[in-house]
Amino acid sequence: MIIRKKENWLKMLFVWEGSVLPQILYRLILLLLISVFVVYCRGSVFNYKIQLNPGPFTLFGIALAIFFGFRNNVSYERFWEGRKLWGSLLNTTRSLTRQVQTLNGEEDNKEVNEFVNLLVSFTYALKHQLRHTDATPDITRISGVLLADKLKPAIYKPAMLIKEMGMWVKKRKAKGDFDSIQTTSFDQSLNELSNILGGCERIASTPIPYTYKVLLHRTVYIYCFLLPFGFVDSLGWMMPVIVVFIAYTFVALEAVADELEDPFGLEPNDLALNSLCTMIETTLLEMSDREVPVAPVREGYIQD
Amino acid sequence: MIIRKKENWLKMLFVWEGSVLPQILYRLILLLLISVFVVYCRGSVFNYKIQLNPGPFTLFGIALAIFFGFRNNVSYERFWEGRKLWGSLLNTTRSLTRQVQTLNGEEDNKEVNEFVNLLVSFTYALKHQLRHTDATPDITRISGVLLADKLKPAIYKPAMLIKEMGMWVKKRKAKGDFDSIQTTSFDQSLNELSNILGGCERIASTPIPYTYKVLLHRTVYIYCFLLPFGFVDSLGWMMPVIVVFIAYTFVALEAVADELEDPFGLEPNDLALNSLCTMIETTLLEMSDREVPVAPVREGYIQD
Amino acid sequence: MIIRKKENWLKMLFVWEGSVLPQILYRLILLLLISVFVVYCRGSVFNYKIQLNPGPFTLFGIALAIFFGFRNNVSYERFWEGRKLWGSLLNTTRSLTRQVQTLNGEEDNKEVNEFVNLLVSFTYALKHQLRHTDATPDITRISGVLLADKLKPAIYKPAMLIKEMGMWVKKRKAKGDFDSIQTTSFDQSLNELSNILGGCERIASTPIPYTYKVLLHRTVYIYCFLLPFGFVDSLGWMMPVIVVFIAYTFVALEAVADELEDPFGLEPNDLALNSLCTMIETTLLEMSDREVPVAPVREGYIQD
Amino acid sequence: MIIRKKENWLKMLFVWEGSVLPQILYRLILLLLISVFVVYCRGSVFNYKIQLNPGPFTLFGIALAIFFGFRNNVSYERFWEGRKLWGSLLNTTRSLTRQVQTLNGEEDNKEVNEFVNLLVSFTYALKHQLRHTDATPDITRISGVLLADKLKPAIYKPAMLIKEMGMWVKKRKAKGDFDSIQTTSFDQSLNELSNILGGCERIASTPIPYTYKVLLHRTVYIYCFLLPFGFVDSLGWMMPVIVVFIAYTFVALEAVADELEDPFGLEPNDLALNSLCTMIETTLLEMSDREVPVAPVREGYIQD
Amino acid sequence: MIIRKKENWLKMLFVWEGSVLPQILYRLILLLLISVFVVYCRGSVFNYKIQLNPGPFTLFGIALAIFFGFRNNVSYERFWEGRKLWGSLLNTTRSLTRQVQTLNGEEDNKEVNEFVNLLVSFTYALKHQLRHTDATPDITRISGVLLADKLKPAIYKPAMLIKEMGMWVKKRKAKGDFDSIQTTSFDQSLNELSNILGGCERIASTPIPYTYKVLLHRTVYIYCFLLPFGFVDSLGWMMPVIVVFIAYTFVALEAVADELEDPFGLEPNDLALNSLCTMIETTLLEMSDREVPVAPVREGYIQD
Repeated sequence: MIIRKKENWLKMLFVWEGSVLPQILYRLILLLLISVFVVYCRGSVFNYKIQLNPGPFTLFGIALAIFFGFRNNVSYERFWEGRKLWGSLLNTTRSLTRQVQTLNGEEDNKEVNEFVNLLVSFTYALKHQLRHTDATPDITRISGVLLADKLKPAIYKPAMLIKEMGMWVKKRKAKGDFDSIQTTSFDQSLNELSNILGGCERIASTPIPYTYKVLLHRTVYIYCFLLPFGFVDSLGWMMPVIVVFIAYTFVALEAVADELEDPFGLEPNDLALNSLCTMIETTLLEMSDREVPVAPVREGYIQD
Repeated sequence: MIIRKKENWLKMLFVWEGSVLPQILYRLILLLLISVFVVYCRGSVFNYKIQLNPGPFTLFGIALAIFFGFRNNVSYERFWEGRKLWGSLLNTTRSLTRQVQTLNGEEDNKEVNEFVNLLVSFTYALKHQLRHTDATPDITRISGVLLADKLKPAIYKPAMLIKEMGMWVKKRKAKGDFDSIQTTSFDQSLNELSNILGGCERIASTPIPYTYKVLLHRTVYIYCFLLPFGFVDSLGWMMPVIVVFIAYTFVALEAVADELEDPFGLEPNDLALNSLCTMIETTLLEMSDREVPVAPVREGYIQD
Repeated sequence: MIIRKKENWLKMLFVWEGSVLPQILYRLILLLLISVFVVYCRGSVFNYKIQLNPGPFTLFGIALAIFFGFRNNVSYERFWEGRKLWGSLLNTTRSLTRQVQTLNGEEDNKEVNEFVNLLVSFTYALKHQLRHTDATPDITRISGVLLADKLKPAIYKPAMLIKEMGMWVKKRKAKGDFDSIQTTSFDQSLNELSNILGGCERIASTPIPYTYKVLLHRTVYIYCFLLPFGFVDSLGWMMPVIVVFIAYTFVALEAVADELEDPFGLEPNDLALNSLCTMIETTLLEMSDREVPVAPVREGYIQD
Repeated sequence: MIIRKKENWLKMLFVWEGSVLPQILYRLILLLLISVFVVYCRGSVFNYKIQLNPGPFTLFGIALAIFFGFRNNVSYERFWEGRKLWGSLLNTTRSLTRQVQTLNGEEDNKEVNEFVNLLVSFTYALKHQLRHTDATPDITRISGVLLADKLKPAIYKPAMLIKEMGMWVKKRKAKGDFDSIQTTSFDQSLNELSNILGGCERIASTPIPYTYKVLLHRTVYIYCFLLPFGFVDSLGWMMPVIVVFIAYTFVALEAVADELEDPFGLEPNDLALNSLCTMIETTLLEMSDREVPVAPVREGYIQD
Repeated sequence: MIIRKKENWLKMLFVWEGSVLPQILYRLILLLLISVFVVYCRGSVFNYKIQLNPGPFTLFGIALAIFFGFRNNVSYERFWEGRKLWGSLLNTTRSLTRQVQTLNGEEDNKEVNEFVNLLVSFTYALKHQLRHTDATPDITRISGVLLADKLKPAIYKPAMLIKEMGMWVKKRKAKGDFDSIQTTSFDQSLNELSNILGGCERIASTPIPYTYKVLLHRTVYIYCFLLPFGFVDSLGWMMPVIVVFIAYTFVALEAVADELEDPFGLEPNDLALNSLCTMIETTLLEMSDREVPVAPVREGYIQD
């Protein structure tokens, strides 16, 4: 995800990087060529004049914009819910870190560190599950090779890590460090982690219904490629400019909505999961008075 | 529910499977034939010229799109709420599985397994209730014939299964395994299951008000079948193309909204309840260190 | 509330029952007559030609549709929130029934039944309060004449019934059946009932601001009765058809929104409170192993 | 707030009271006069013909309607959130009343009454804080002159009343009436009161951004006062009718949105806080078996 | 943030301060000059007539308004969520202040004050983190130089302050002042603080996707600078007035949305964090019977 400082309104018009333009450039050029050809032929194909006028395009363009408003909204909500879940992950891991440090009298630092490591491992394992990559190297780095080996065959690694945290609590309780009330309180925080995990899995595994996307995609492209015929008579040589301008907005919006829909991917507008993992690791280590081995999140450009 | 990889924008235009087109094809062909006939007669029926122009269609088409935006939104929200409830089911069953394993000292594996089986049975029973099918075979497979027979006459099987879980907790408490605090904590998780069950029942039993659907349905079809008369004079032989294109979008959107409205059905865009059941069974068995008898969810196409 | 099976798209066009048409028929016929008269006079009244054209009607019709979209949304959300509250009522009463049965060792069935009866009485009392009818017969049938007499003078019967449940818990606690933790857990569930009650009261007592409704109502009707003059010149004898069609949609939508706004009434689109009461009674009795005296909810048509 | 029974569709067209019309009448008459003058001059000012046509007004009118839809939505949500908070206040005070009566063995009625009085005082004090009026007379009437004097200098009286409730609980706990668990349970309900208080303060102290309102206000009025020039050529002497009709809708909607935005005020569409206070007082006294000194809420017209 | 009393509708049209006009004035003057030039040349550039008409502008203007409606909505929701989080901060700090005062028998005022000071420090530290300013002076003023020095190197100061509160609770528990239940209750409130912190960080660190903003920004400006050519033929010398009017609305709306998007900044429409900090400090000190050293929030103009 690219984060940029506020910019001059004039500069912002000519931004290239971070714009969706490169991605859809060829389609727009294709449309431009077709438009120019249509003007050149004055709207006739094989000497047959395509009898179209702006009327139905106005009617349908606005209807399309309304359906697009809905599509945008849904995509953005998925993006934002994904971000909220990772925000909750930060809150819950911080709270759990505070709780293991403050809940009881004399804390054994080794045990506290072990638990905090489990939290950090969970964070990385969640990222890897969402991106279909291997979590083993990160788990090895954080919680050691023993746990990494144990979790290697697991299909749902983050779920198993929550269970490990539950086992850690059970062990402490058996030693008499925690009573029933404290265990229950921990349990609720672990349930919260479970909800975050399930929420991310839900967004990742259930896209916007495919039929829906096909329908809007089809409608947008047919609309844009019919546009030149609709406006050729009234706009003449200005038609290609206007058509490409209108098409740019619709096609680019669809492309952005498509990216936001799956917020855990690696496209430019997706969530900066790497930076979020680093940030959670940093703050948890800071809270447990350990040295911070990773560079804190840099401001300005965040390339993920 | 069909889940497909991201596709080329060009390929996506010619998708057949997973599109709603097959379902509404005959209506569109009927409209096409009528449109061609209207052009042929130049908008006259029995030598009486139907005096219509695009004006009222622009006005009304946009109003229709706005009402449709609302209909779409409501249908999608029902779909997504259904998905959220099943996501919560995953989270809650995972949390309960962790809790029975970690809450107390020496766990009797047989008892833990019995409880996890109840959770899996509940998941399947919920699916069967929502789809009006018989849950007995699945309950027999998972929790044994004794329980299946006991639940056979029950009208609300999932509700009875939650009660069985409550009875399991009561039994453990009577044996002194759980104290009041742990019992209360379990109880809250069982209440959560009850909320999930009730939420699914609510969506399944309360459709969008029928009057509302009739109204929009009627409006869309009358609109589409009047369209040819409105555009015949200005578009000539291009009219059938444009009319079918506009009608395709409206009619297809209504069809998709109709499917999403009841997300627990068996239509192509409905939720993949079978896969979700399998997934919950897999992760719960993995968490309780038992062998996973069912194939985990395959990626790519999920046909439910 | 009428629930119908999915129907053929063609049949659905000619549905009469369950459509809002009967309710607004006279208004539409009035409009039709006016339209025909306007065509006959060619848009003149007392030989004065009303100089109107479709222009302002397009502009205003779309604006109207946008404001209507908002009105619809708000009405539907009230309907759906009402449904959610009754769904929560089902969940909470089920959870409480499970809790009284499983929370402690040897349950005195008489006491359990007494509590479940209070829950069922509460459900019926809530329905009666929302519909301004007398709850006494139902309370007598379920919880006996003693309680019914005691509650007769109460203004807020459901609130008093929650207090009775609290008294039941207090009595059990005094006998040593419940400890502090269990009492607190019960208390939270009773608070939940209190929230449901208050939520229903809120929807029932606070309609959409009256000014708002008057404004939209007035705008819709003035708009529809001006429409004939706007389209008479361009559409001729087709004008009455188009005008009645447009008016049908706007007027019918307003009528549906008006019904949904107060979801606890007795109009065709209102919530099926009778069926919901029966369903809650059925499932609670089933859970407490008592015979089910009322017929379970029939599928298909539900007339409330 | 005015609540009226459902009315005949015809009668509703001629409602005067409860309509926003009186408030905006002079502006509409001014616009009417300008419109008539514009028709009389045939769109010329000082012999200079203002060259305008309906085109840009259609474009901009619809855009305006969309922005208004947003403004309406936000205002209504503020109104409804305010109503929800007062609904929660009813629920929470009822729950607390039930809790003080049922939580422990022998209740000292005097102490229970003292606590219920604090709840009622809180309700009135909240109303007074939101309306910037003096709460002292009401606190004196309900909880006595001692407490009223103590709270007189307080800036945030309702917050201080919650603290008083906390002190009451502390006193009871010191006497051994409550244990830790019960105290915690009370504390959570008091936190809920704190959330309600803070929620109301938030809505009251943070209006919709001023810039936003100025922008829409300005746009609406400039639009309406330019309208006559746009439609004078095409509509002639019908123009003033149409222009005032369109302006009525836009200006009235802005006026309603402006009222709803601050739901705790004293304008006709604001929340009936007086009635809500009376209702809460009535139900709490009824629940604690005390005589109800205030008249219960009358049905029909509620003038606040 | 500027808060103003309600104003006369006429006065509101001529407001200068608090309007976004100054900020976008130069752009509008530039557009005005271009428009005048276009009228002067009658739509020709270098003797080449730009062949444009209002048609595509109507189509696209409405589509643009729809996309803008979405952008506005998202920006406002971010603003309002930010406000809600600071409202929760007020509620939670008030509740914690009440809890430390009422939870146990004899309170040591020094210890209570220390905790309240931590709460106030947290509030200021959060403001400073969100605005990237140094929290040390405020922490020194409130909680003393010792704590300020300790927190100086911390990257996430507010998170460390929550940990300090946890440590305070731990110390009290070790002294036997709190039991497990009370500690858990405190812990939940501290978790709530952690959620507020994380929520603010989320809004501050994740802007609306940049691509999205670039796209809309570009579309609005290209649209506005093409407008003169579209309306020059039909509006003549009235065109510059209309074009600047339309552009004013779109450009101003984008500017407002841009400000609201990041609600923690220092622009005129951002949240009044300074006033909120002062208010929280005032109410917490009032609740703990200490003198209020800062002036309470003045009514009327709040310049932050």
